[in-house]
Amino acid sequence: MVDVIDKKRSGKELTPEEIQFFVDGVVDGSIPDYQTSAFLMAIYFNGMTKEEQSNLTMTMMKSGDHLDLSDIEGVKVDKHSTGGVGDKTSIPLAAVVAALGIPVPMISGRGLGHTGGTLDKLEAIPGYQVEISEADFKRQVNDEKLAIIGATGNIAPADKKIYALRDVTDTVDSIPLIASSIMSKKIASGTDALIIDVKTGAGAFMKTLPESEKLARALVDIGQGVGMQCMAIISDMNQPLGKAIGNALEIEESIELLKGNGPADLVELITTIGGYMAVMGHKAQTVAEGKQMCLDVINNGEALERFRAMVAAQGGDATVVDAPQAVLPQAKYQIELSAKTSGVVSKLEADEMGIASMLLGGGRQKADDQLDYAVGIMLNKKIGDSVKSGEPLLTIYSNREDVADIKELLYNNIEISDSAKAPELIYETIE
Amino acid sequence: MVDVIDKKRSGKELTPEEIQFFVDGVVDGSIPDYQTSAFLMAIYFNGMTKEEQSNLTMTMMKSGDHLDLSDIEGVKVDKHSTGGVGDKTSIPLAAVVAALGIPVPMISGRGLGHTGGTLDKLEAIPGYQVEISEADFKRQVNDEKLAIIGATGNIAPADKKIYALRDVTDTVDSIPLIASSIMSKKIASGTDALIIDVKTGAGAFMKTLPESEKLARALVDIGQGVGMQCMAIISDMNQPLGKAIGNALEIEESIELLKGNGPADLVELITTIGGYMAVMGHKAQTVAEGKQMCLDVINNGEALERFRAMVAAQGGDATVVDAPQAVLPQAKYQIELSAKTSGVVSKLEADEMGIASMLLGGGRQKADDQLDYAVGIMLNKKIGDSVKSGEPLLTIYSNREDVADIKELLYNNIEISDSAKAPELIYETIE
Repeated sequence: MVDVIDKKRSGKELTPEEIQFFVDGVVDGSIPDYQTSAFLMAIYFNGMTKEEQSNLTMTMMKSGDHLDLSDIEGVKVDKHSTGGVGDKTSIPLAAVVAALGIPVPMISGRGLGHTGGTLDKLEAIPGYQVEISEADFKRQVNDEKLAIIGATGNIAPADKKIYALRDVTDTVDSIPLIASSIMSKKIASGTDALIIDVKTGAGAFMKTLPESEKLARALVDIGQGVGMQCMAIISDMNQPLGKAIGNALEIEESIELLKGNGPADLVELITTIGGYMAVMGHKAQTVAEGKQMCLDVINNGEALERFRAMVAAQGGDATVVDAPQAVLPQAKYQIELSAKTSGVVSKLEADEMGIASMLLGGGRQKADDQLDYAVGIMLNKKIGDSVKSGEPLLTIYSNREDVADIKELLYNNIEISDSAKAPELIYETIE
Repeated sequence: MVDVIDKKRSGKELTPEEIQFFVDGVVDGSIPDYQTSAFLMAIYFNGMTKEEQSNLTMTMMKSGDHLDLSDIEGVKVDKHSTGGVGDKTSIPLAAVVAALGIPVPMISGRGLGHTGGTLDKLEAIPGYQVEISEADFKRQVNDEKLAIIGATGNIAPADKKIYALRDVTDTVDSIPLIASSIMSKKIASGTDALIIDVKTGAGAFMKTLPESEKLARALVDIGQGVGMQCMAIISDMNQPLGKAIGNALEIEESIELLKGNGPADLVELITTIGGYMAVMGHKAQTVAEGKQMCLDVINNGEALERFRAMVAAQGGDATVVDAPQAVLPQAKYQIELSAKTSGVVSKLEADEMGIASMLLGGGRQKADDQLDYAVGIMLNKKIGDSVKSGEPLLTIYSNREDVADIKELLYNNIEISDSAKAPELIYETIE
């Protein structure tokens, strides 16, 4: 292992055999953590070639189980987000795309730190089961065209161990390590096509556009390298997405969107990604056509029915669709945060908004923290919106009465200026 | 700790408090090895400022005991080598400098891999004790002007732990880590003045002159920063130093040198370093004067008597001085390696010669390997020497009869050309 570390540290390219030796040693425990972490830091500094990234991904993928979805009819299309604040996109999107007749077998994750997780949000619905068997998963995707579940079985165990070490050795934000982590799991999940929403900005892993582009390129290269239909978009995460931050609040916003009442940015993002997925799933010729189809299934209620079907199939209380507030946990206090001056909102720092929601109990500081599904933040204004002094900027949903700390944090991360315009939502597409 | 790793990984300067936190955590075990090794790799890539190096050194030094040599009269002068092959310099040098009336309290180390260790060589003398108490050490330096011992007590425990990790995580050859490791121990040893022989070339840690200069500069800066008289020379380690490689063989060569029969390069190195030490110890005005004084104490036998006194004081058989071969362990077989062609020796790859001696049993592959003191190599020719086909290049001293593997290794690392000249011995001085 010292020789493998040395090779990477010296900037040389690792052979497939060396990568295999590393992954095997991580899985069977023969390589001690201190060597793994030194190796990861060397990768952080010296990067990996396209070839190495692809080998690392496939070797990690093969370190565990992988799903065979070939008995599900049609082109299976999945979507992955690199994570952000208020990013409930996957939930209504899966319903929209399923409504087009495209099977969406989605394996999602949980949130940590300022970012939320799709599984956590769905668990705000009483009864919703994210752990279901592989057979039930396949049956549900065949019958209902969609399922959103947690990883089944022993998916990419090498990645699990490596990720835990990266988290405590400051090697999280390395593009080859992020890319191989995401793609090893996505390839193991057996999807035919994948679109990745690479978030960029204050609330994202990648804070700058050039970094985000590099990550998007690495992800797409790996996917295409194994014959998967794979593309990425780069979208804004300087301010939260939509208006809701917090598990139950985001489910409610998702349902409202499927009823035609979604916030403009979230609708735009979902119909754009859905448009690409419609093309990948052979249901549309062009993205514009696919996008229109997505709007149609929102407007005619078919997407909402797919969502209802998924919730019911996974054991959740499907009446959440009809009366979200009656079914979802509700916070004891709703506290408005009002603008101190008049002007135009010029900053709504996404990561700090996510931290505010976490501190209310809606997110995890450590992996085993319990969540309070009811709490969070509903934005009343977004960047570019005019606001008058005293007018509510947002509402804090809390189960504690004293939220002075949260108010201070939020005030420190919201700016009102003379003028500002909304940031671009989708910066570019990587195919 | 993740924040400290992050700061170094991002190329920022660590505060003294952050360095203290790291060293404390290493010593008390609260920082896990995988974080330490990631941090060390980040230092490997991003280096350390002069300030950081100095803080790391002093913090590691203070992590353990340090000797107070103030009750030894005179200016105490020590010498350290970064390690090489055939580098027995410290042994005769200590005797020469002690013969000038300068106290030499030398704390030395053991060998690993292709490099030999001063303590191992001295232990080839039957009875020689390298572990003696601090009180006996001081008494001996006061009475006899010299002692060469292993580290007493708990010197720089942080360095011990860090060094063990560096060895298995490929972070050995980082200048700030090498420099702080050497200097934390040397400062803890309580010497007033120090000259460091930074080896450069194939058999040294630092293979190139620019790297060696950087290390020398870092070492001297740290020493001078704490008010120590400190300087360095950079000397050649492309070919072995002197003619003997192997523990008993090097003791014999050291004794022969003190009798006036030393190989030219070793004599030159010892009298040069001794000349600087004479100036540091206030016994000479100039290096040239000091150098002449060193030659004088070799020629008049006073240096040899100092060596005899040290061996006796440390429990060794002092008759080794009179009849080295009768006292030192002798190898069963002496096998000559003869030149295959005529010409001039143009290459004697130092590291591979050291490995040959190690493979014969004279060195350690792992830290707990037992040594065979008798074995090694005696060079008959050095770079720049003419040789005729069939003439012996060197003699292998072995306790096994079949040395075909050693012969092959040696032949592969010796070159004979039409012309070649001896490499420069001392490249430069850093003060």
